[in-house]
Amino acid sequence: MADDDEHLDTAFLALADPVRRRIIARLSRGPATVNELAEPFAITKQADSKHIQGLELAGLVTRTRDAQRRPVHLNPARLEALTAWIDRYRLVREGQFRSLDAVLQSQAAERGTQAKDSS
Amino acid sequence: MADDDEHLDTAFLALADPVRRRIIARLSRGPATVNELAEPFAITKQADSKHIQGLELAGLVTRTRDAQRRPVHLNPARLEALTAWIDRYRLVREGQFRSLDAVLQSQAAERGTQAKDSS
Repeated sequence: MADDDEHLDTAFLALADPVRRRIIARLSRGPATVNELAEPFAITKQADSKHIQGLELAGLVTRTRDAQRRPVHLNPARLEALTAWIDRYRLVREGQFRSLDAVLQSQAAERGTQAKDSS
Repeated sequence: MADDDEHLDTAFLALADPVRRRIIARLSRGPATVNELAEPFAITKQADSKHIQGLELAGLVTRTRDAQRRPVHLNPARLEALTAWIDRYRLVREGQFRSLDAVLQSQAAERGTQAKDSS
């Protein structure tokens, strides 16, 4: 639980930055080197490396030791773990809205029947 | 785009905390007051209020002005916006893996045919 919590903390924190989200978007189209990733964002290679380190720590991207030349890859499994966490609670809540709708509809139908009976 | 980015920053940041995630989990089962939310987490009402303010700012929960007594509600639509953002890039990447698999399989099949032809 503590481990899971730490992973989720790091991963959600990593996504809470527009440059890191744009790096994710770029990597979804295929691996890229640190240089290739720095270019479109008008940031220094140093700033870019730091963002990639943040994403790597969160498990959202992977790269080899030779960080300057080897491409960075997106880790879709880690992204899926985040949507799984969010969807677990979203779907419970939406399920309850649907149940409430069903109750209201059946009550309305019942009232309709009662109104007909008493007319 | 800047607006969207700011919303995503705030929302992902709000989820990067274990107490706030537990509040989301609790609210998925139904609305709760600030007092009810503070109790199971062994935190002060003040700390709890601050966490709820963070979630409210991110649009993940809603509550009325009379914050001490009115229940806090989960906003599943906002959670869905986050999964939509993540899934957009995850699915592009996974689609590419599937395409690559298909290419490798067709190449392997071709090699199999060539091997048979030359035998």
